[in-house]
Amino acid sequence: MVKVGFLKLGNIATAPLIEFLLDERAEREDIDVRVVGSGAKLGESQAEEVARKMLEMNPDLVILISPNAALPGPTKAREILANSGKPVIVVSDAPAKKAIKKMEQLGVGYIIIEADSMIGARREFLDPVEMALFNSDMIKVLGVTGVFNIVYEEIDKVIEALKKGEKLELPRVIINKEKAVEAAKFHNPYALTKAMAAYEIARQVAELSVEGCFKVKEWERYVKIVAAAHEMARIAAKLAEEAREIEKSQDTVIRRPHHDDGAILMKRKLIEKPRRQKT
Amino acid sequence: MVKVGFLKLGNIATAPLIEFLLDERAEREDIDVRVVGSGAKLGESQAEEVARKMLEMNPDLVILISPNAALPGPTKAREILANSGKPVIVVSDAPAKKAIKKMEQLGVGYIIIEADSMIGARREFLDPVEMALFNSDMIKVLGVTGVFNIVYEEIDKVIEALKKGEKLELPRVIINKEKAVEAAKFHNPYALTKAMAAYEIARQVAELSVEGCFKVKEWERYVKIVAAAHEMARIAAKLAEEAREIEKSQDTVIRRPHHDDGAILMKRKLIEKPRRQKT
Amino acid sequence: MVKVGFLKLGNIATAPLIEFLLDERAEREDIDVRVVGSGAKLGESQAEEVARKMLEMNPDLVILISPNAALPGPTKAREILANSGKPVIVVSDAPAKKAIKKMEQLGVGYIIIEADSMIGARREFLDPVEMALFNSDMIKVLGVTGVFNIVYEEIDKVIEALKKGEKLELPRVIINKEKAVEAAKFHNPYALTKAMAAYEIARQVAELSVEGCFKVKEWERYVKIVAAAHEMARIAAKLAEEAREIEKSQDTVIRRPHHDDGAILMKRKLIEKPRRQKT
Amino acid sequence: MVKVGFLKLGNIATAPLIEFLLDERAEREDIDVRVVGSGAKLGESQAEEVARKMLEMNPDLVILISPNAALPGPTKAREILANSGKPVIVVSDAPAKKAIKKMEQLGVGYIIIEADSMIGARREFLDPVEMALFNSDMIKVLGVTGVFNIVYEEIDKVIEALKKGEKLELPRVIINKEKAVEAAKFHNPYALTKAMAAYEIARQVAELSVEGCFKVKEWERYVKIVAAAHEMARIAAKLAEEAREIEKSQDTVIRRPHHDDGAILMKRKLIEKPRRQKT
Amino acid sequence: MVKVGFLKLGNIATAPLIEFLLDERAEREDIDVRVVGSGAKLGESQAEEVARKMLEMNPDLVILISPNAALPGPTKAREILANSGKPVIVVSDAPAKKAIKKMEQLGVGYIIIEADSMIGARREFLDPVEMALFNSDMIKVLGVTGVFNIVYEEIDKVIEALKKGEKLELPRVIINKEKAVEAAKFHNPYALTKAMAAYEIARQVAELSVEGCFKVKEWERYVKIVAAAHEMARIAAKLAEEAREIEKSQDTVIRRPHHDDGAILMKRKLIEKPRRQKT
Amino acid sequence: MVKVGFLKLGNIATAPLIEFLLDERAEREDIDVRVVGSGAKLGESQAEEVARKMLEMNPDLVILISPNAALPGPTKAREILANSGKPVIVVSDAPAKKAIKKMEQLGVGYIIIEADSMIGARREFLDPVEMALFNSDMIKVLGVTGVFNIVYEEIDKVIEALKKGEKLELPRVIINKEKAVEAAKFHNPYALTKAMAAYEIARQVAELSVEGCFKVKEWERYVKIVAAAHEMARIAAKLAEEAREIEKSQDTVIRRPHHDDGAILMKRKLIEKPRRQKT
Repeated sequence: MVKVGFLKLGNIATAPLIEFLLDERAEREDIDVRVVGSGAKLGESQAEEVARKMLEMNPDLVILISPNAALPGPTKAREILANSGKPVIVVSDAPAKKAIKKMEQLGVGYIIIEADSMIGARREFLDPVEMALFNSDMIKVLGVTGVFNIVYEEIDKVIEALKKGEKLELPRVIINKEKAVEAAKFHNPYALTKAMAAYEIARQVAELSVEGCFKVKEWERYVKIVAAAHEMARIAAKLAEEAREIEKSQDTVIRRPHHDDGAILMKRKLIEKPRRQKT
Repeated sequence: MVKVGFLKLGNIATAPLIEFLLDERAEREDIDVRVVGSGAKLGESQAEEVARKMLEMNPDLVILISPNAALPGPTKAREILANSGKPVIVVSDAPAKKAIKKMEQLGVGYIIIEADSMIGARREFLDPVEMALFNSDMIKVLGVTGVFNIVYEEIDKVIEALKKGEKLELPRVIINKEKAVEAAKFHNPYALTKAMAAYEIARQVAELSVEGCFKVKEWERYVKIVAAAHEMARIAAKLAEEAREIEKSQDTVIRRPHHDDGAILMKRKLIEKPRRQKT
Repeated sequence: MVKVGFLKLGNIATAPLIEFLLDERAEREDIDVRVVGSGAKLGESQAEEVARKMLEMNPDLVILISPNAALPGPTKAREILANSGKPVIVVSDAPAKKAIKKMEQLGVGYIIIEADSMIGARREFLDPVEMALFNSDMIKVLGVTGVFNIVYEEIDKVIEALKKGEKLELPRVIINKEKAVEAAKFHNPYALTKAMAAYEIARQVAELSVEGCFKVKEWERYVKIVAAAHEMARIAAKLAEEAREIEKSQDTVIRRPHHDDGAILMKRKLIEKPRRQKT
Repeated sequence: MVKVGFLKLGNIATAPLIEFLLDERAEREDIDVRVVGSGAKLGESQAEEVARKMLEMNPDLVILISPNAALPGPTKAREILANSGKPVIVVSDAPAKKAIKKMEQLGVGYIIIEADSMIGARREFLDPVEMALFNSDMIKVLGVTGVFNIVYEEIDKVIEALKKGEKLELPRVIINKEKAVEAAKFHNPYALTKAMAAYEIARQVAELSVEGCFKVKEWERYVKIVAAAHEMARIAAKLAEEAREIEKSQDTVIRRPHHDDGAILMKRKLIEKPRRQKT
Repeated sequence: MVKVGFLKLGNIATAPLIEFLLDERAEREDIDVRVVGSGAKLGESQAEEVARKMLEMNPDLVILISPNAALPGPTKAREILANSGKPVIVVSDAPAKKAIKKMEQLGVGYIIIEADSMIGARREFLDPVEMALFNSDMIKVLGVTGVFNIVYEEIDKVIEALKKGEKLELPRVIINKEKAVEAAKFHNPYALTKAMAAYEIARQVAELSVEGCFKVKEWERYVKIVAAAHEMARIAAKLAEEAREIEKSQDTVIRRPHHDDGAILMKRKLIEKPRRQKT
Repeated sequence: MVKVGFLKLGNIATAPLIEFLLDERAEREDIDVRVVGSGAKLGESQAEEVARKMLEMNPDLVILISPNAALPGPTKAREILANSGKPVIVVSDAPAKKAIKKMEQLGVGYIIIEADSMIGARREFLDPVEMALFNSDMIKVLGVTGVFNIVYEEIDKVIEALKKGEKLELPRVIINKEKAVEAAKFHNPYALTKAMAAYEIARQVAELSVEGCFKVKEWERYVKIVAAAHEMARIAAKLAEEAREIEKSQDTVIRRPHHDDGAILMKRKLIEKPRRQKT
């Protein structure tokens, strides 16, 4: 039994469901999961406290997920975790690229998701409901375009190595449009191109969010800009859904459920049993 | 500063973002949030361990969220938390109604969300991506139809009382279609009726999920039934979106962001500043 | 030539087109159809008058269609028809289940359609146009999901037996989601699951209509509830259409036109001739 | 109490629900309705039989509805009814224009609906389900665009005159795009133009149906043409729905329910009571 | 190198992109293109001036494109071009049928596109943006339904003959719904019927535009009529898009790019190389 | 009468309709338009020839429109035109920014449209129909988002100055998302934000087109990338349409038709006369 710890600081769209990506039906017998988080805030003090709490639970592997892994809070947490000697995988968004070198020096793995864009965090615009809807749209995009496939496959690989007592190779992955849609294993090439387009639109959301949140000072202007960012996320989700509906129309939706023993099974037709994949 | 703990056992669609509903832009200065969870599993042993870990963090208030609060795991966690003397609010789905009496005897509050329906948890159907997409759809429904408004307003009320040192009145709320859409404060009545319809479709998802997961034994039949349940969730999300788009078309989307001090502000027009609401 | 009488009391969504389901292009030479009805009302006196009028036409078979076959009017008509010795098939909606025992004792057949839900019959909401639009949506759902297939196939079987002078076996069918979509013979399994979901949403319309029409007394509340019921019907029709469009995209729409001699032919590809099916 | 008879020969999209347009909630106390019909066929012998059966019921007013009122069957029925001295209103589709002179000579009223186009009645294409879906689409178009408003208002006027013992003025109406949308009383002008466009597309369906049913002989060609006709009906229904959704978004959907006494009430806002209109 | 001149008088929806249909990626080495036009106006004086300017450029072939080739301006230009001895192909819309005889006498070829309907040219309605959106919709319809295929194939045939020094056979084509969709080479028959329906709706736009522009005098009426015409164009574009999306879902979109040498290549699957077609 | 010359080299989405933006109903009496173009190619030799041909027509103002104004062909044409002493306005896309300094030195005006993105010009993907559909989508985006408003207003200003004999101030405008949507004068702020999002998606198309056309060498990869670029254009057009449909639903679509005398009139409600705007 591998004990997997998820340390969550702040939020990106990959974070809310990440632990369930590993065990989507609560049937897995080879892992035990623990989650610790600090809510929306990701300051150094919170980061330190929750990192230490995580270590108290004695996980075999820690997934540290936060926006912008280069910020002080995530950096602090990362160092505490890494210094414990536990294997650590950082999951973060595009600004985390600035921390790659440090992460590599520290020996932690990383999965950087370019399309997991910043939310339009302006008080005149973002309330709890708008926050939830944005996450809903981005989860749809990340789910359909293949991002989540990469996330859980990479983590599963490390779990598998831990189970077998093999030497760990922690992932060093930057997910871009081509890697994402490849991982999604679309059958129809137009579904793939729609997904790729959805990915790119989602990725570009960050440009407007950053502009609206940090660069533009006049509130009448920045409200429009962050609202436009969320419209982009919404339409990207629509495009992602077009991609998946195409696969449904061909009965070629790939499904890769986890077996109880942690193996990733595979199937294409809805009325068919999933099978173990050849390695 | 009120320390709010979220204890998450397993998953319902309200769970992944619940802590962010309280502090959607990470600007709140009156609360500090800690999250502990056990991932997909919610057995008694996990429940006990994470409940104790939560108490170690010494929260002023604990939100315990899980599917079916009547199950042994959530029951165990609830009892440990309640016995600590901390105020506890249980957030759960329709089957939790069976636990109401026990919860009232234990003195814990509860928010039961009828529309937060069970996922189609069959291995032939549910893989990580399908799980994520279902949550995306349900989050959209719950967000638009007013469920999340009730959730954070009820928790905020208790936080407010804690801040003022007032006697606590813990919520005892069962969210149904009428309560939800009232909380959403739609301006257009057709937006309201679309949201109410979306709520009901989402609520009905549980019927098919339960039938497909627990009653039907032939796999070719139950796969179709749980897949139909997810199609219902998807179309409910579409209907929810119609509701919100109507409000956009009138520039009457209500937004109620949190102020730094925890107050819930209010605004209707996009280009307008949110204001404190009269109490 | 079999003379088929349709006696219509009040309206359910299966009623307006039922006689045309048997002879969709007016080419059938083996049957002659007569319809008698009482419009929207289905009281005992109207029921009696039209039932007697129907018998005057001396049909070989009578289809009695009405909402809630357990009501006094439909019951009266059913008894008059049955007592004449004519074979009778009752077509009705979910509340008709209460009359099953009586129907079986009386020796009449029945086809009960769970998804043929009650309309939102409140004066503040339902005007002639809203009534027509609701029927339009429900006809789409019933047509796509396979309900109409069962209706005309069951009646055709009895006609066939009458033509051959065989002993009649009148149908005793309760159409539920699984029977409906099986009868629709979808080629694509996702089309099937969408149709099943549409069926269930349509079925659930009745819950809200009944609540809005009979249980809730405050008019501001019941208007919203019946309006939500109609939004459910509308979105169910959209989902049904998604199902059919998938089949179109695969060129696998099944078509089963009647031959002049009453046989049900079959074809799948648009550009192909329908053929007699093997029995 | 005015006894209104509906004689139905064959089918046009206005026929299936016409009697319910007069009494949409079965609450009207000033009329009693009887319907007699011959199903899909409208030959002279059937027409004669059902016309006589209708007269036996002694209606105060007869609505005779059929495709192409210039055909022998409808002509026969019309003459029988008119010769009885009963007031008669013919409701028919565009080809009925050829019978206008005769109808005027005979003293019967008429309502001719240009957009109630012929179905694509080719055996390779039209089966019971396709027939139902076409009617569903056309009912939506006719309902939204104002056609049904004219139909029931014209009949109601005659009923009112009968109730008051006034001299009857039977309608002589040809419904075209402008009359239809005027009767629909749209509040938003773009809703009106969308409805007008939907009306025209529906009207044009007849061109292709007639070409596909009567002019083109090669089956591979005519199947495509009648299938295109049905695609036109489907997209016209979508456009009609856009019109209605706009009115919903403004909360300006006009509703004109019948009162128990037969008066046509009126309202605009969803949450408002319908009122008697000033005459 | 064949020098192809395009003379544009006024605008129809085929005109703005016609020269690019011949060389969609600017890679063709066998032709050189020159365009001369008079903008929106197509009076005789403008027509004469631009026709002479075109001849100064000494083209090997002239494509003269304008609305209503029977008008004095296009007639004048046609005569000047034809009298120069250059081969001329007229591309125009439905009213051009009146000029067919004259064109044949003059020895010019013609391609008449029935669905390239007149715009709703009323000052109260048509501004630059509405004009652009109408053209956008019509280009989509003409592109998907096969019209543009015929246009460039016919011109390419003449270019080919010029290159080979063969005797020219100038096209005499009236594009109707069946010719268009045949040229589009749809793989799925429902895509074909949707395209045919889109074509017919687009064709019918002219009826309303002409009525609104020339027949109705009251401005409140004609504004609605021309606006309805544009709604028809918009929904026709949607239907055209449905057709293309079906082909995408099957990975059967036909693509026929030009080779550098002017040959029209062909491919069906997205991930496949286009090949020369057998003649 | 001002003679306006349009010189078109190659194609961007603003080019096909640009001359009609000035005179959308062919009623303007203050300008005469001449267009000369070289089709898809924009090499130096073609550019020189058509530029000289344009000058022969003796225009009062020349609009030179091409992709990438920094390329040799457009540069050549620009110099020839500028050296003639005629006022010149260059309209081009984002890469033209490289030529700004040169254009300013040469004294020509410019309008650079960031969202007028490059097409996916790969032979395996781009055929004449795909080219047309891409232009259709981009025209919709540019039309709705306000780009075309800026284009014709800037040109009209210069025409007005020419008419009055005033000193010319040639435009120096780079159209970005905020300038575009401001020019579109949306009434509803969500329409504005949707348009802004559509603009940004369209702008981002260039990134993928450039990557697919110039950077990626493996054809299986670049086909997917350019196809994704076109999916982005398509979904941007959808979002633009949502924006316009919102304005329709409010009856607030701004229309600014040209008067015969060249003045830009203005109106908001569909059923209202356009009026001269106060300056």
